[in-house]
Amino acid sequence: MRKSAIEELAPEARRSGRRAGPSRTRSAVLAAAQRRFAELGNDRTTLRSIAAEAQVDQKLVGYFFGSKQALFVAATELPFDPGAAIQHVLGGDGDARGARLACLIVEMLENPMAGPRLIGLVRAAAAEPEAARMVRDLFGRQIWGPAAAKLPVKDPDLAVSLIASQALGLVLARYVIQVEPLASMPADKIVDLMAPTLQPLLTADKTGGRYARTRATNR
Amino acid sequence: MRKSAIEELAPEARRSGRRAGPSRTRSAVLAAAQRRFAELGNDRTTLRSIAAEAQVDQKLVGYFFGSKQALFVAATELPFDPGAAIQHVLGGDGDARGARLACLIVEMLENPMAGPRLIGLVRAAAAEPEAARMVRDLFGRQIWGPAAAKLPVKDPDLAVSLIASQALGLVLARYVIQVEPLASMPADKIVDLMAPTLQPLLTADKTGGRYARTRATNR
Repeated sequence: MRKSAIEELAPEARRSGRRAGPSRTRSAVLAAAQRRFAELGNDRTTLRSIAAEAQVDQKLVGYFFGSKQALFVAATELPFDPGAAIQHVLGGDGDARGARLACLIVEMLENPMAGPRLIGLVRAAAAEPEAARMVRDLFGRQIWGPAAAKLPVKDPDLAVSLIASQALGLVLARYVIQVEPLASMPADKIVDLMAPTLQPLLTADKTGGRYARTRATNR
Repeated sequence: MRKSAIEELAPEARRSGRRAGPSRTRSAVLAAAQRRFAELGNDRTTLRSIAAEAQVDQKLVGYFFGSKQALFVAATELPFDPGAAIQHVLGGDGDARGARLACLIVEMLENPMAGPRLIGLVRAAAAEPEAARMVRDLFGRQIWGPAAAKLPVKDPDLAVSLIASQALGLVLARYVIQVEPLASMPADKIVDLMAPTLQPLLTADKTGGRYARTRATNR
């Protein structure tokens, strides 16, 4: 059933007189998506234009990737090397880890190439549960997992998820919803605001860190 | 031009033999949207079903509200009284303001009625720039503005935008992208994690608060 749908919908398979195979068609769609998304961004790119560029039927794009948001996530590569980033943040002066991580996050989000890609991933995740699952897998496998393995804190998985929460909040508040004055503040001021919140999440602490504090009784 | 489009597309105006007026048609669409979104949520509600329930042409829904995300924001009322919430957080013991605000945010997000509505607003804002603008206006007018007017800190607008960033990060990390262990942690543990980050944003501080600290030189 599925096989015949691919054969029917992939003109390249028909034209060439042989079976192109699903993986070749899928790669063609992915390459076309990468070009279109890079050129126009997620909002202005249509599934129709991707299908046209890949020379396949639009239904086939849906068959392989489900939706535009899911295709966007599948077509997006992380614009940095997570391993090198983790090493940069955790190496050097221990007291400046929060500042280095804040600087890294803000510089990437402000970068004209990397920023739109990262912000686009967050927006895609928010738009659709399937894209959210894909972003969780992508970030989990490539960033959060390796980071948690290196963090010298009591509960590294929790620390990483709290760091993720800080970065996601910044993306939404400053770049997407554009809450003032956060949205128009200089980048270095944002770094100063984030650094002290990130620092305790990156540092070994005999008490277990602020984020392992027992529940306040006085509420 | 626009007027004739409304007249042409609104069957109720034609049927009744008199002009229903754009505001009456708009209200009918809004009421239908509120019922459909409340019943099925944003993801599973279609513009077509809203148009059918309001007994208007689907094009007219687009004419009045632009897109489904924008209609979702327009149809959503805040599920709490911001004035009472601000009073609750700022009244009482000053040292427990962070805990009270964290408790309020988490309780609302966990509430089966209020949570999906608030999370839906954040998701709509992330999905589409027009919906983002509407959410910024809604939150700004109803929550952030009144809160900033009452906050006893040096830069209340900045403090409010940082609080917003914390809440938005929680929404995305725990409820939308579902980063573990944050996603499956008990609600009271989340409150304990958030409270110390929120506390300095809610308290007068002669030094201007942690978030007004000058830039660290040691990076």
